[in-house]
Order: sequence, then structure tokens, then C-alpha cells
Amino acid sequence: MSLLVVGSIAYDTIETPVAKRENVLGGSAPFFAYAAGFFCPVQMVGVVGADWLPEYTEMFQKQGVDTSGIEIVPDGKTFRWSGKYHENMNDRDTLDTQLNVLGTFQPKLPENFRRTQCVFLANGAPSTGLIALDQIQGADLVVADTMNLWINIARPDLDTLMKRVDGLIINDSEAKMLTGEMNTITAAHKVLAMGPKFVIVKKGEHGAIFVSEYEMYIVPAYPVENVVDPTGAGDSFAGGLMGYIASQQGHLDGETIKNAMVCGTVVASFGIEGFSFDRFKEISREDIDGRCEAFRTMASF
Amino acid sequence: MSLLVVGSIAYDTIETPVAKRENVLGGSAPFFAYAAGFFCPVQMVGVVGADWLPEYTEMFQKQGVDTSGIEIVPDGKTFRWSGKYHENMNDRDTLDTQLNVLGTFQPKLPENFRRTQCVFLANGAPSTGLIALDQIQGADLVVADTMNLWINIARPDLDTLMKRVDGLIINDSEAKMLTGEMNTITAAHKVLAMGPKFVIVKKGEHGAIFVSEYEMYIVPAYPVENVVDPTGAGDSFAGGLMGYIASQQGHLDGETIKNAMVCGTVVASFGIEGFSFDRFKEISREDIDGRCEAFRTMASF
Repeated sequence: MSLLVVGSIAYDTIETPVAKRENVLGGSAPFFAYAAGFFCPVQMVGVVGADWLPEYTEMFQKQGVDTSGIEIVPDGKTFRWSGKYHENMNDRDTLDTQLNVLGTFQPKLPENFRRTQCVFLANGAPSTGLIALDQIQGADLVVADTMNLWINIARPDLDTLMKRVDGLIINDSEAKMLTGEMNTITAAHKVLAMGPKFVIVKKGEHGAIFVSEYEMYIVPAYPVENVVDPTGAGDSFAGGLMGYIASQQGHLDGETIKNAMVCGTVVASFGIEGFSFDRFKEISREDIDGRCEAFRTMASF
Repeated sequence: MSLLVVGSIAYDTIETPVAKRENVLGGSAPFFAYAAGFFCPVQMVGVVGADWLPEYTEMFQKQGVDTSGIEIVPDGKTFRWSGKYHENMNDRDTLDTQLNVLGTFQPKLPENFRRTQCVFLANGAPSTGLIALDQIQGADLVVADTMNLWINIARPDLDTLMKRVDGLIINDSEAKMLTGEMNTITAAHKVLAMGPKFVIVKKGEHGAIFVSEYEMYIVPAYPVENVVDPTGAGDSFAGGLMGYIASQQGHLDGETIKNAMVCGTVVASFGIEGFSFDRFKEISREDIDGRCEAFRTMASF
């Protein structure tokens, strides 16, 4: 099945307790698309400025990503985000955000993207996701990610969006913020009442939980000792997950859901072993399959 | 195989965001022993005062626990602990501790307890564990639990104890405190260098990880929406885990370890659904097996 992603494309400046990198490729759509590209063909929609490097377009094309949905604004600058990770590598502070071309982004989907079957609205303004959805006819599966910023400043759009998606992927703390509930499972059930048929709660180094009205699936995180840069882990997780589901024709039975969460977990575990796309560029589908097997030995019972 | 536990026996006063209970049965040895009793015969060693209720002795005997190692100090009072849980039900403050008879506890093992094959030194002063170990001949498997208090005030004894055990069960934050490492896996490996052949890191609502030199196993927590009282969850987890291992003749292959962690997780998940032993008294081995199967559907892939 075809898989389309709409989201932010960024140049990130990242500081960790051990190193710093300036203006490296980041953003929700690139991490998602590259991760999903290990499993199925991907269509990427986003916006960049004149500072966009053609080598990135090539990198995505090599990964099986159709880049014709990347809009280049000739007199604009690509969105920039800068953050600093705490000693624990889980918490981070945003140091700077320059929206640039992302501030006025109105996604325009190429004609051949509009009949896609699986859609992922990666983290970005809910209004951007809604504009994209209006251009898509009869998708089988629409899933969105969101974050605290949109819960705080764009709640009406987010509420509208939640009624139009099949699934929502959200962080543990954000699920609690969105619902006012302290218990993750209770919070997830309350999110279901807002529209989505299922919700996947990401718990970072503690794994993820899938919750629908009658089902629950849990996958722990793959243990990574050498965390270099967690940026994009949630987007890569979603990419591996949705990529696997698309590769299985979108069937959402229990085994597919658990395997998809395992794929997402494993892909994300590789991504955080390097800055930006460094580690992804070193690995193949075989590496992912090998680590999935090792993970099965560790965590399947 | 026979399984012996040495640990504290307490009367707890517990306050949660929704309720309060005074002087209910608690302590590391009772939670461990009752949980393990679902899987194998258990020998319990501890000390209580004249305020000990015979109905508790009966309760344990019904659960297959040999209570002949419970020393009753006729002119003493049982150890008392009082704590208050935060809104998130994970963090808690200790409000009061009265050591009473526990302060001078010197475990004396009945003769027929001294050739036991599996030993669990539940949370308590490391010196108490060492006195008990000196009375045991040739156990096949010795595992200890510890906590921040002993890391802070009894480090030399704890260091000695760690060299005499096969395994250590410890909280995530305490493993980090003990080793000065921020990454759970790195911390676990550093604990191994202190003596134990394996370490099981408990992560509360996020599950547990088993780490030895060449192996790692991960089990998420069973999702519980209605957490009434988390007191004793770690001890019950250890009880279910060690009870299962003892029931499997102590074989520590990968499948046994994972299944033991699942049993510990599931037993603990029942325990926290009620105050003290309320929920445990309602369930049977069949309930545990049923929830283990449900957990497999949720989390095995």
C-alpha cells in the first residue's frame, strides 16, 4: 500500500551532554519517511527554503521516498529548531525555533499523492494536517501525531483533526495533558472518546502502548546503551510502524499491530545511535530484521 | 524446589489520593511470601511484636507458607511504616518509620530452613541478610533486593552482600544511584561488576529488565488502570518471579527467566488493585494463569 506523510522539514542544532551538531537535517516528515522507507514506498510532503541541499533529495529518493511533494520556496529559509538534551538524554529544552517557510506552509499534494491509502500527519500544526486531508480521497488509514504545543495553542483545530483520523500517536505526558488523567491507560481511553479509533501512547525509553476500545498491545523499547541523539525517535518509531502496516496492506489485526510496533521500536533504536540521519544511512532492512529477531529473543515470551 | 525469604514484616499506614488505611499488614517478606506461595512452598523468616495477629499466621499457612521462622517478641511492637502516595501513584513520601522489633532483628533460621535451595533476601538491612546467609548451606540460588536507604547508610555491608548473591533485584533509580550511571543498561552492567551474576532492574509501571553478562530480557508491566495501593508491588513481583523459578527447579534459561518475570509482573498487577493483601486474598493461581495468557496476547510478538 502507498504511504504518504505530511510534516515539518527542519535544520536542527542539537546539543547533548557529549557533543553538538549545527544545522543537521531533522523534522517530523524526514525521520518518518526515511524510517518508513525501509518497509514500503513513501510519498513525502513538506516545505523547505532555498537553503535546501539537493543531496538530501537524493538521500530520500535512494530510500524509496517520492520527493515530488517537497515544496521549495526560492526566497525562503528552511524551518530551524535548536535544542539541548539533559544529562538523562530524555528531557530536553528548546533553545530556539525559527519557523521561516513553515510558518505559512499550505501543503499542496501532487495529483498522484491524492489517492494514497495510508496517510500519516506527522507532528505539525493541526490546521496543516486538515488542509492535507481535504486533498485526499478515501484513504483507508489516517493516523496523526501531535504534541504539547498544539494541545496548548491549537486545541480547536486539534479537536477537529482528531474526529477525522483513525489513529493518534501521542507521548505519554501529552496524553495526560490532553485528557487531564494521570493514568496512561485511562488517558488513552479518554482520547478515544475524542474521535480516534485507536491511540498509540509513546513512552520513550519505556516503549509504547496501543489502545483501542477492545484491545491493548504493549511493546517495550529496545534497550540502547549508547544513545547519541534522541531527536526524531518518535517520528522514526511512527515511520517504522506505519511502514510495516502499509507493507501488510493495512490489515490491523493484533499480530500486525504488535509487529508494527516492534518494527517502529527497532528502527527508532537505530536512529538514536547517531546524530540526524547518520546511523540510518549505515543500515539496511537486514539490520532491522536482525535486531527485530534479537528483540524477540529478549522480549517475547 | 524450596524457597526461603528473609525480610521485614510491617504494619503500614497508607494514604493514597483517594483513601487511607491504618495498620494494615505489609513488609517485604509478607508480600514476597504470599506472591511466591501461588507457585511453590515458601519458608518465611522475620520478626514481629506482641501485636501480631494470629489470623495473619493462618493466612500465610493457607497460602502454603511455613511460618515457623516468624519470631514473635512478646514484649515488642511490630515494625511500623507510614507513607503517602502522590497523585501519580508512583512517587511517595515516607511520613513515619518506627523500627521497633526490627531494629534489633537477628534472624534465626529453624533447622529445616537451613538446607533450602532458593533464598531471597527481601528488602532489609544488608547485615540481616548476611546473618541469614551464614546459616544456610549450599543454596543453589541466592537473590537479594535492596533500596536507596541501604545504599546510603550501609554501603560496606551491601558491598559484602553483593559478592555473596547470585542476583540482585533493584529499582531503576536505585541502580543509577548505586552506580552513578544515567543509562539503565549501563548501570545494570556496572552492578554486575560489584558481584551479582545477574541483576533485575524494576521500573515500576514500565516493567523490568534482566541483565547478565551475555543476556538481556525485558518484560513490560501489565497495564493496571485502577491502582489502589502500589505498596509491596516490588516485593510481590520478586515473589512471583522467584516462586516461578523455584517451581521450575531453578533452571535459569531464557524462557524460564522471561516467564518468571511475566509471573512476577502479573502477581504484582493484582496486588496493587487493593490495599495490603485485600486483592491477593480474592485470587487463585487460575486467575494468575488467566491474566498471564491475556498478557501474552497483549505483549508477546
